[in-house]
Amino acid sequence: VEITQALKNVRLKADEPNSSGKLVLKTPKGTRDYHPYQMMLRRSMLDKIVSCFERHGAENIDTPVFELKDVLTGKYGEDSKLIYDLADQGGEILALRYDLTVPFARYLAMGKISNIKRYQIAKVYRRDNPAMTRGRYREFLQCDFDIAGQYDPMIPDVECAKIVDEILLSLDVGEFVIKVNHRKILDGLFEACGVPVEKFRSICSAVDKLDKSPWPEVKAEMIKEKGLSEEVADKIGEYVKLNGKDDLVEQLLSDPLISANKAAKEGLESMRLFLRYAELYSILPRVSFDMSLARGLDYYTGIIFESVLTGIQNLPKEEVSGKKKKKPPTKTNEGDDDGSLGIGSVAGGGRYDNLVGMFDAKGKSVPCVGVSIGVERLFSILEAKAIAEQRSLRTSATEVYVASAQKGLLEERMKLCQLLWENNVKAEQSYKGNPKLLAQLQFCEERCIPLAIVLGESEIQQGVVKLRDVVSRSEKTIKRDGLIDEIKNILRTRAQDSSS
Amino acid sequence: VEITQALKNVRLKADEPNSSGKLVLKTPKGTRDYHPYQMMLRRSMLDKIVSCFERHGAENIDTPVFELKDVLTGKYGEDSKLIYDLADQGGEILALRYDLTVPFARYLAMGKISNIKRYQIAKVYRRDNPAMTRGRYREFLQCDFDIAGQYDPMIPDVECAKIVDEILLSLDVGEFVIKVNHRKILDGLFEACGVPVEKFRSICSAVDKLDKSPWPEVKAEMIKEKGLSEEVADKIGEYVKLNGKDDLVEQLLSDPLISANKAAKEGLESMRLFLRYAELYSILPRVSFDMSLARGLDYYTGIIFESVLTGIQNLPKEEVSGKKKKKPPTKTNEGDDDGSLGIGSVAGGGRYDNLVGMFDAKGKSVPCVGVSIGVERLFSILEAKAIAEQRSLRTSATEVYVASAQKGLLEERMKLCQLLWENNVKAEQSYKGNPKLLAQLQFCEERCIPLAIVLGESEIQQGVVKLRDVVSRSEKTIKRDGLIDEIKNILRTRAQDSSS
Repeated sequence: VEITQALKNVRLKADEPNSSGKLVLKTPKGTRDYHPYQMMLRRSMLDKIVSCFERHGAENIDTPVFELKDVLTGKYGEDSKLIYDLADQGGEILALRYDLTVPFARYLAMGKISNIKRYQIAKVYRRDNPAMTRGRYREFLQCDFDIAGQYDPMIPDVECAKIVDEILLSLDVGEFVIKVNHRKILDGLFEACGVPVEKFRSICSAVDKLDKSPWPEVKAEMIKEKGLSEEVADKIGEYVKLNGKDDLVEQLLSDPLISANKAAKEGLESMRLFLRYAELYSILPRVSFDMSLARGLDYYTGIIFESVLTGIQNLPKEEVSGKKKKKPPTKTNEGDDDGSLGIGSVAGGGRYDNLVGMFDAKGKSVPCVGVSIGVERLFSILEAKAIAEQRSLRTSATEVYVASAQKGLLEERMKLCQLLWENNVKAEQSYKGNPKLLAQLQFCEERCIPLAIVLGESEIQQGVVKLRDVVSRSEKTIKRDGLIDEIKNILRTRAQDSSS
Repeated sequence: VEITQALKNVRLKADEPNSSGKLVLKTPKGTRDYHPYQMMLRRSMLDKIVSCFERHGAENIDTPVFELKDVLTGKYGEDSKLIYDLADQGGEILALRYDLTVPFARYLAMGKISNIKRYQIAKVYRRDNPAMTRGRYREFLQCDFDIAGQYDPMIPDVECAKIVDEILLSLDVGEFVIKVNHRKILDGLFEACGVPVEKFRSICSAVDKLDKSPWPEVKAEMIKEKGLSEEVADKIGEYVKLNGKDDLVEQLLSDPLISANKAAKEGLESMRLFLRYAELYSILPRVSFDMSLARGLDYYTGIIFESVLTGIQNLPKEEVSGKKKKKPPTKTNEGDDDGSLGIGSVAGGGRYDNLVGMFDAKGKSVPCVGVSIGVERLFSILEAKAIAEQRSLRTSATEVYVASAQKGLLEERMKLCQLLWENNVKAEQSYKGNPKLLAQLQFCEERCIPLAIVLGESEIQQGVVKLRDVVSRSEKTIKRDGLIDEIKNILRTRAQDSSS
């Protein structure tokens, strides 16, 4: 509940207009700077995510921020309009990457790589309607994990769901559910209900909106926009409201309409296997076979998943600022990867067996399955939580501050800093020649620097230094010769105390 | 010498034309993918750089990959033509960042931040003539360290040089020199020699070319293109060939022409102080006060530095491929930050006291000094070195591979993986249901995975597993209950052995 309130507060703050006078001093629409406090939080979040990827043996790759426009063309359906193009400056025609999946497929085809388990952490770009306080940006980070290769059914697939489960548990963002469905089940359902093949993908898109719109709206879209009969739409409606686990698989397999359809039956057999493996991987309690899950992107061919936080109260969908009326958001397809998913959705993915083949001259494909973690949304939740808990987070790693109690000691401070740095102690000092002692000690306290060396003329003459514990403000005199050992001992003891 | 050869080999390889058939399957000109092996090398390099930044108490920030075009306009002089513009798609006019310095200045002005010591590691974009095998790209990573704030002379400045020194020593890239000069010394020299004020920057640009062109060429440019008299050019020529340390400072201070000039004198006093501090920070042996160092960018106002590797033989400046004739490179200003510096240059920076003021409505500025590490060049050296030394680097972190000796054990393998993951052991297994034992063990050896668990029916019945040391191929039987402890013990012992 406090988290919800904190998110609201952050939201209101971000809604304030930029008041920078005449000069327009801002970051581009839908983008932001990250301040040191945020970078620390982000890094600790990313460390956990990378740990998980590495625990599963994944390798890391990187690709350029832009691709030849042709690489992206024809991969995103109606979302293509959200791609950022680069200006034609007389060379190749380029565009910023929209996700990490298509560049990964290009990477595989270009390098003729037929199997790899890789992760990539990089920013992607979408000219979408930003809703930044809900963690939805035009520039946002994606953390992708994918398994490429010709393998046996559902073994790589379930590991992707396992990755999502481990990451969400490690980030401690409350309860969540990993929704799973299968494109073959959906296609089989549509076929069985009498939807013409050429409408499969557009009906799939309509179903995908069920996480945000009630059934009557989706039904109306199917009938009015997509041209289904009411009877067919109603039949679909009966099924897409279903969710469960193995019980639902058995129910559908014994349903005459569904079990008579080859694709649906194959999809259900796969789902049965997936759920069995999910049990072995201890994720079954958080998995839901959900017939309403459809995913917006065209390229999925098998299992699809999406993870939704259920422990955090949803924020209102439209930004409502008390100060000024916003333009209504333009209608965009929201059912795509990552950050721009429905409210609460923090991860998504699926199997895409034909994408690599689109880049191969002979159409040779590499089966792939993967998942993308929506870190911006997770970050906005973690940030709101940190603020709500008034958690103070150090933004620098300094261990020792070198202070002087008198004037004229700059060179002595410099010598000490040099000694500390060369012994790999994280140290800093004032950039002023004769800083005030109080200002120096205040800096240590504000920055939570654990130790300070306080230099004075008499200590220098005696070959000693005063070592101050910043929190307790206690000081002890130490021989300069033994200074490094003493500092390392203190820091080691503290690290052990705080980890135990 | 082997490094030089290795660099040449890499160069020849990269020159081969892309032979992907009809479909153009490539990354955009001047960009590249990074493979797992390269990512491991890059990460270990970046870890050392970040350690150094943090040892000096720096905070981390991040800014968007693009900025409003207006933010970049008027900051880079003639290099502005190298900026990547985004297409006008009906919103703001945007461009990709050209460096991290101008976005940092925008960040300071926008947030009204008057002091910060920050680092930022991010890619920047320049439509330059790429020379990729020398580590020169259109998309490349910069690691910037800057100190903003009103402080006392040369204290922050010398720390920037110290940072460069620590990083280059830690990366073990051979001998290097940190060249230092001061804009006031250059301006004073020009003034004393009779160069009109309005020509200071363009003469500065000409001097900047001395690291690549011999004096007669630079002199010719000064006379023919920049309109100096031969007498004035010759006078400048006498000075710009000088380099030294404190001796040169004293020599110039006692030179009647130079010491009569106010700016030059002030610059020399600053240089004296810088060299004194450099001695206290133990970097003086690698510092050279070099009158030929000018730096291309307009925004520098005080100290400037550039670090050059001297231990590595330079590669020929132009790409010479045995296979096809390349177009001659278009003439571009090469004297800018980072990767696009002269051959061997791996870091550069300086003081820019007026840049932040360009973003402030009232012109209020924040004095800044900083340095940018040219990691792409360093990386290409480290990569060539790793290849020359035939160093095998693990590309994944897997500690235990779960193998099966018989068919039908997939579920048992899955249970074991789950056990390992939940105990934070890095583990993987085959994605095939019934993989061949030999293939599994080969995978372990190729990937340098230290341990393998080999599962068989009889072991499962007895509640034990076989734990195999992959290198020695020795196996021992362990009770399943004690498996995790045993594995952690083995891994701990090995980590200690390899670190001691």
